[in-house]
Amino acid sequence: MTSEIKIDHREKAYSLLRKDAEKIAQLIKVQMDNLTMPQCPLYEEVLDTQMFGLSREIEFAVRLGLVDEMDGKTLMDSLEKELSILHEAFTNK
Amino acid sequence: MTSEIKIDHREKAYSLLRKDAEKIAQLIKVQMDNLTMPQCPLYEEVLDTQMFGLSREIEFAVRLGLVDEMDGKTLMDSLEKELSILHEAFTNK
Repeated sequence: MTSEIKIDHREKAYSLLRKDAEKIAQLIKVQMDNLTMPQCPLYEEVLDTQMFGLSREIEFAVRLGLVDEMDGKTLMDSLEKELSILHEAFTNK
Repeated sequence: MTSEIKIDHREKAYSLLRKDAEKIAQLIKVQMDNLTMPQCPLYEEVLDTQMFGLSREIEFAVRLGLVDEMDGKTLMDSLEKELSILHEAFTNK
């Protein structure tokens, strides 16, 4: 029972973080699609704010001992990668 | 044993959030002390960023079921109050 509870919080933490990361990925995708439209601005500030918010959530979950540091880093890294692809595409637009 | 583990995560979450709130309160205090010095800027952006970060941590803890929504709100409200006192003092400087 003890470990079930523990796993439950861990699982919930992972599930919430994945959900939030998915929302940002979706935002990035929308921005990417917008690139084909002329003079469409890049909402960098919105994305940066969301990324910062997620990083604080992940950090908090790691400090709580619910999420492994490496898993948190992997989640952030994959978003950073998509973001940099977006930035590159925007620069070369 | 089950409830001990649960309380442990709850207690840790509360303790981490209180620690982070204390850091912001300290930042506000430093800014307040700086008001007596001429031409000292108000680092509003820094404070706003830290407040946003904390609000995301609290929200995450609430979603995890580790922190009561009202407790989270109380923590944010007390900081917002200190912040508004600082803003007022800065405006009337």
